[in-house]
Amino acid sequence: MSNTIAAIATPLALGGVSMIRISGDEAIKIADRIFHPSRCDSLQELEGYSASYGVVFDEQGAIDDGMALIYRAPKSYTGEDVVEISCHGGIYITKRVLRLVIEKGARLAGPGEFSKRAFLNGKLSLTQAESIMDLINSKSEQAMRSSRAQMDGALYQKIEAMKTTLLNTAGHLAAWVDYPEEEIEEIREETLLKTLQDCEKQMNHLLDTFDTGKMLREGIETAIVGKTNVGKSTLMNLLSGCEKSIVTDIAGTTRDVIEETVNLGNVILRLADTAGIRETDDFVEQKGVELSLKRIRNAGFVLAVFDYSEELNEDDRKIIQEVIACNTPTLAVVNKTDLTQKINLSYINDNFKQIVYTDQKDPFSLQRLIDAIETVLEFHQIDLSDGMIANERQRSCALRTQQALKEAVQAMEFGMTLDAVTVSIDQAIEALLELTGERVTEKVVDQVFHNFCVGK
Amino acid sequence: MSNTIAAIATPLALGGVSMIRISGDEAIKIADRIFHPSRCDSLQELEGYSASYGVVFDEQGAIDDGMALIYRAPKSYTGEDVVEISCHGGIYITKRVLRLVIEKGARLAGPGEFSKRAFLNGKLSLTQAESIMDLINSKSEQAMRSSRAQMDGALYQKIEAMKTTLLNTAGHLAAWVDYPEEEIEEIREETLLKTLQDCEKQMNHLLDTFDTGKMLREGIETAIVGKTNVGKSTLMNLLSGCEKSIVTDIAGTTRDVIEETVNLGNVILRLADTAGIRETDDFVEQKGVELSLKRIRNAGFVLAVFDYSEELNEDDRKIIQEVIACNTPTLAVVNKTDLTQKINLSYINDNFKQIVYTDQKDPFSLQRLIDAIETVLEFHQIDLSDGMIANERQRSCALRTQQALKEAVQAMEFGMTLDAVTVSIDQAIEALLELTGERVTEKVVDQVFHNFCVGK
Repeated sequence: MSNTIAAIATPLALGGVSMIRISGDEAIKIADRIFHPSRCDSLQELEGYSASYGVVFDEQGAIDDGMALIYRAPKSYTGEDVVEISCHGGIYITKRVLRLVIEKGARLAGPGEFSKRAFLNGKLSLTQAESIMDLINSKSEQAMRSSRAQMDGALYQKIEAMKTTLLNTAGHLAAWVDYPEEEIEEIREETLLKTLQDCEKQMNHLLDTFDTGKMLREGIETAIVGKTNVGKSTLMNLLSGCEKSIVTDIAGTTRDVIEETVNLGNVILRLADTAGIRETDDFVEQKGVELSLKRIRNAGFVLAVFDYSEELNEDDRKIIQEVIACNTPTLAVVNKTDLTQKINLSYINDNFKQIVYTDQKDPFSLQRLIDAIETVLEFHQIDLSDGMIANERQRSCALRTQQALKEAVQAMEFGMTLDAVTVSIDQAIEALLELTGERVTEKVVDQVFHNFCVGK
Repeated sequence: MSNTIAAIATPLALGGVSMIRISGDEAIKIADRIFHPSRCDSLQELEGYSASYGVVFDEQGAIDDGMALIYRAPKSYTGEDVVEISCHGGIYITKRVLRLVIEKGARLAGPGEFSKRAFLNGKLSLTQAESIMDLINSKSEQAMRSSRAQMDGALYQKIEAMKTTLLNTAGHLAAWVDYPEEEIEEIREETLLKTLQDCEKQMNHLLDTFDTGKMLREGIETAIVGKTNVGKSTLMNLLSGCEKSIVTDIAGTTRDVIEETVNLGNVILRLADTAGIRETDDFVEQKGVELSLKRIRNAGFVLAVFDYSEELNEDDRKIIQEVIACNTPTLAVVNKTDLTQKINLSYINDNFKQIVYTDQKDPFSLQRLIDAIETVLEFHQIDLSDGMIANERQRSCALRTQQALKEAVQAMEFGMTLDAVTVSIDQAIEALLELTGERVTEKVVDQVFHNFCVGK
C-alpha cells in the first residue's frame, strides 16, 4: 500500500472548483504523472507555496485544466509533501481526476487521514484536531468562535497548565518519598491539599462547559407548547422566517429526517423536523395538552405560549405546572396582545422569570422574542474564547481526571499515606495525557479521526 | 458598486476545504484586510502563483485559518488580479468568510461573472466558456471528453475555418463588384458555388452533432416496455445496480423530482424518476400495454422486453408494431432464458436488428446488455474530439448560418446578381460571429453566463 494518500478535499457537489489533495513522500512525483504545468517542465521544480496552471491528462489526452499548488515537508498541513490540484467542480470530473491520481500511485485517504498525519507529525494536539470538525460543522457565530478558540488551543492550554501543576506535585512527592535522606523541601500537607482542591475545582468548571458547548454546537431542543389555537404555529413561522435562520440537514441522521434549525444569530433553536411538528400539532388539536407535556420533558428549552385575549384555563395551568416541575429554562410568550386583555397576568408573572409579549402584526415582536430568548439562555455570559470540553471522548477523560483528583483529596482528608495520594495524582495525569492525545492508544486516535470527513 | 467581485467557488456543502475567489483591481488589497499571512507582512508582497498560510480575521479576532493564493493580472482565470482563499469547508464558516470579504469592499459575484470577465478579457471564446458548465455537469467519460474538446476549442476552430473562407469570399466579391476597373481576379461562379456548397455541407454536419452532444451530456430518455410480468423491473434493477451507475438529482428540477440516471460507462440512460416508473408500472399492470405504447413515443431509446418462456401474445405484437412505427432505436431483450423456450424467435429476429438474451441468474447478462445497448446507440462511432454544437444558442446561430448559406446557393442557382449572394454570405458571417461571441449583444452574453453557477 502506498504511503501517499489522496482524496477530494472540497464538498462533492456541483460547483465552480473542486480540490484534490495528495499527501506523502511521493505526492509531487505522482502529481507530475498526471499534471502538466505550464510554468515549468515538472512540479518538482516548484518551491513550496507556489502554484502553476496546467493540464490534467491521462493516456488519451487532457481531462481537465486547473492549478497545482505545492507544499514541501514539513511546511504543510500534514507535515509531509502535499500537492493540491484544483480542477473544475463537477462530480464526474472531480472523481475522474481522483481516480487518475490513485491509478498513478496514491491510495485513497481514509476519513480524517490528513488530519491524523498532522496529529502524528506534531502539527496539532488531539483536542485541536477534534475542534476542526466542530468548526466545519458550526452553524452559528458563537459555535464558530468557540470551535476556533479550541483550535487555537484554548482547551489544550488549560489542560497543559493543570498537567504541569500535577506533574510538578507528583515529582516533588516522589522525590520526597523515595529519597528522604536528600535535602528536598518538605511537603506541606496543607499546600498539597490546596493544590489538589484547586485542580479539582478547575476540572469541575471545565466539565460544566460541556453542556454549554453542546448547546452552542448543536443548538437547543426547543418545545413550543400551549393550548389549542394559542398561536404556536405563528410563533414557529415567526422564528423560521427570521432573516438569519437556516434550514439544515443534521449530520448523522438519515436523509429523510430534516430538522428546522432556527439560527437567531447567537442562539440555535432546534424546532424538530417540520413534518414531525405538523403531525404533532394535529395530535395536539385532538388530544389536548398531553403531548405538550411530553414535549416539555424532552426539551432543553421551552417556549410556553399563552393567549392574551383569553382567560387562563385548565390546559394553561397544566402546562405551567409541568414547566415548573421540569425546571427547564422557559420563556413565557403572551401572544395576541393586539386583542383585548382577558388573561390574568399576575399568575404568569408569579410563575415565570421572563415574559415576552408578541403580536403578529407588530414588526418588533421578533426582536423582542430573540432578546428574551438570549436572556433566558444566558448566552451573553458565555466566554467563547474559554477552553471547553467539546465531545464525549474529552468528557470521559475529564471525568476520570475529576474522579482521580477527588480520590487524591479524600486520601489526604482521611489521612492516608502520601503513596496513596501519589497513585491518584498519577491517574489524573494519565487521563489528562489521554485528553490532549500525548499518551493515547492507536484505537482512540483512529476513533477520533474516523468521525472526520474524507479529504480533511 | 465595487469592480472587485467575490464568491464561494467550491460547492456549498460540508467538506474539508472551501475556496473563496476574489477578482478585480482591489482583490489583493481587500484580501489583505481580512487575511494575515504568516510568510510575509502583506499579500501585496507575494508574486503571482504563490501562496501563504495565514489567518482570516475580523475585528473580534481570528475566524479561520487557511491559504491565500495570489494571481496577478493578466495571468489569472479572469485576466484580473485574483486571490483564492481556502478555508475550512463548513457551510457557516465559508459564508462567514465571504461575508467578511464583502464587508471589506468586494461585491458578490453574479452567476458566471468570473467566466464572463474571462470572456470579456479575451481569455475564452463564448463557445469555450459555454463548454465549462458542460464539463462541470458532465456525468460520463464521453460527455467529459466531448466537453473538454469544446473547451480546447474544437468547435471554435471549425467555425473559425468556415468564417475565414466566407470572409475571403465576401471580400473578393465586394472588391470585384465595387472596383470593376481594378485588376481583381474574376469570380468564377463555379468555384464560388462549390465554396458555398461546401460550407453548407459542413454546417449541416455540425448541426447533426447537436443531438449526439445532447445525448452525451444529458443521457437518453429510455423506456423499458413489455407485457405484464415479463421482467421490466428486474431489468431496471439490473441496470441500476450496475457498479458504475449513479443516481443524481437533475439540475433545474425541483428537489422532489429525482431521476434515476444509469451511467453504463459510455452511455447514460435516463430511466425517468423511480417513483414515476413504479407508478407507471402499476398502471401497466392494470391497463395492459397502452401505457407502454405511450412511453415508446416519448423515448429516445427503447428496451423492448420479451419472455423466452412464453409464446408471443397480442400485447407483444402491439409493442413490436409501435416500436417499428416510431423508428426509435430499440434493443430487443429476450428474458428468462433459464426457462424452457416457448417464444417464436424468428418473429423477433425479423423485426429487430439487435437482440440480447438475459437471465437473472447469469452474471454475464449485464455486460452483454451494456454491449448491445452501445451497439444499438452507435456510441463507438462518435468522434469525441470533434467540434459539436452544444446548446440551443449555438444551434440557433448555426441554423441561421445554414439558412443564409442555403439562400446564397439558391441565389446562384437561380442566376441572381452577385449582390444578392453577397448579402446572404454577410448574413452567414454575422451568424458565425455571434456563435463564437466575437459580435454578440450584451443581452446574449448575459444570458450565456446567467446559466453558470455562482463562483465560476
